[in-house]
Amino acid sequence: MTDIDDFRGRIAASYARQKAMETIGAVLTRVEHGSIEIEMPFDEKLTQQHGFLHAGIISAALDTACGYAAYTVTDPEASILTIEFKVNLLSPGRGERFLFRGDVTKPGSTIIVADGRAYAVGDGPAKLIASMTGTMMVIRGRGDIAG
Amino acid sequence: MTDIDDFRGRIAASYARQKAMETIGAVLTRVEHGSIEIEMPFDEKLTQQHGFLHAGIISAALDTACGYAAYTVTDPEASILTIEFKVNLLSPGRGERFLFRGDVTKPGSTIIVADGRAYAVGDGPAKLIASMTGTMMVIRGRGDIAG
Amino acid sequence: MTDIDDFRGRIAASYARQKAMETIGAVLTRVEHGSIEIEMPFDEKLTQQHGFLHAGIISAALDTACGYAAYTVTDPEASILTIEFKVNLLSPGRGERFLFRGDVTKPGSTIIVADGRAYAVGDGPAKLIASMTGTMMVIRGRGDIAG
Amino acid sequence: MTDIDDFRGRIAASYARQKAMETIGAVLTRVEHGSIEIEMPFDEKLTQQHGFLHAGIISAALDTACGYAAYTVTDPEASILTIEFKVNLLSPGRGERFLFRGDVTKPGSTIIVADGRAYAVGDGPAKLIASMTGTMMVIRGRGDIAG
Repeated sequence: MTDIDDFRGRIAASYARQKAMETIGAVLTRVEHGSIEIEMPFDEKLTQQHGFLHAGIISAALDTACGYAAYTVTDPEASILTIEFKVNLLSPGRGERFLFRGDVTKPGSTIIVADGRAYAVGDGPAKLIASMTGTMMVIRGRGDIAG
Repeated sequence: MTDIDDFRGRIAASYARQKAMETIGAVLTRVEHGSIEIEMPFDEKLTQQHGFLHAGIISAALDTACGYAAYTVTDPEASILTIEFKVNLLSPGRGERFLFRGDVTKPGSTIIVADGRAYAVGDGPAKLIASMTGTMMVIRGRGDIAG
Repeated sequence: MTDIDDFRGRIAASYARQKAMETIGAVLTRVEHGSIEIEMPFDEKLTQQHGFLHAGIISAALDTACGYAAYTVTDPEASILTIEFKVNLLSPGRGERFLFRGDVTKPGSTIIVADGRAYAVGDGPAKLIASMTGTMMVIRGRGDIAG
Repeated sequence: MTDIDDFRGRIAASYARQKAMETIGAVLTRVEHGSIEIEMPFDEKLTQQHGFLHAGIISAALDTACGYAAYTVTDPEASILTIEFKVNLLSPGRGERFLFRGDVTKPGSTIIVADGRAYAVGDGPAKLIASMTGTMMVIRGRGDIAG
């Protein structure tokens, strides 16, 4: 049985195949209609030359959050591919843990636009470290791009 | 002695501190004035849900190539931080090896703009898989951001 | 006397020198600390080939809203230049009137990041037609870039 | 008779409906397969507060050049809509005349990516003032978006 509303199941199954997220230690922590959260601890193996979390790793987690946010608003047979994104690095990626949120800004049958925000979280208030806007394409009927 | 022209030495030393590049298996293969190349083999641990190289990993390598391209045109005391970048994913990240090139488009004393291109390389002709435009900031006199 | 808090006066004076805004019929309608609104009526002379408001005109008004939002959070001697922006066109630029809002996302002494949203407004609810993220640079001590 | 190769005729007819280009004085000067050039003189009515050509006007001309570059590689029944673009303002828009070139980087049946460059031209060598990357969507079968 395919439940059209079971985006949580679809996303958990798809996320489990994201080896890159496993490699960087990023875990899916919240799945709502149109909104995704991913969290990961700081890890020295993911740093750039000054010891901060690498901008590309921040982008990887934000892109995944935005992509799955888009995936929550598609029909079960569709897949999502990122066409492009822009990221602004607002503060150095310093912190004990990081939270990445992706939200759908504009749903659509072919193109979905999502916005993401990355935060360093610890004892004090969360600090905004990056923002993303991503354009996602809804893919159907391609055997090599499913789920 | 600090040789103002020894950007190769500065970049090799800085790149060696990029733990994220080591983690994804990306190696610095070419350093010229205004231009950097980085190469890495395909690795299943860096894939997204369809088995392609993750867009965020492509971005990490392209951002590093663009950042060091900027670093080749600064004075030795300066450091580079990425302010923002945009990446277009032009073809799925499929291939045996990948080449990432960053080139300075506009040098400057405070802001440097660089463009990057990512290619899947194998037996046939190289295939363009992504393009990036990044805005880099030249940092001076900050103890936490050096090299 | 220069009142450090009189960003409204500074912005009105600077906006009055924006000939491009006059040409497209865009009027400054709201100035708050960190936030700017600009409004303009639809005008056939600003259309693209399908009769919608041209994406570049939408960008011009959004960039101006984002730039002046940045200007509200600088000291009176500074000026603002746009380094780069990205705009997503979310719906065709159809409508009787348009509202463009720019908000500062990240203030800074050298770099300010602002986000903008454009809406078509009429009798019904406002419709989001575009979003922007822009990176602004704070300029000081350059005679050719003042106000 | 519709000649599939007559992209020059299609583009001239479509460009003639671009009232925004007429308003800013921008003329189509070169149409090749995958490449478009547009030129315009400096006009004080298109300036921002420091007297330079407004970033939004630069974007309008670059977006048009990129959009029509995409249009040269589609079938005659298709139309082009800009989904998103990013522009970097590399130097102030100062000069007597401006040249805007758009080139297709990646053709496609649904998504086309194009890159643009803007130059200030005069007596000396042309000066690069801005670069753009734009994502275009190929539209078919929509009555309100034709040509």
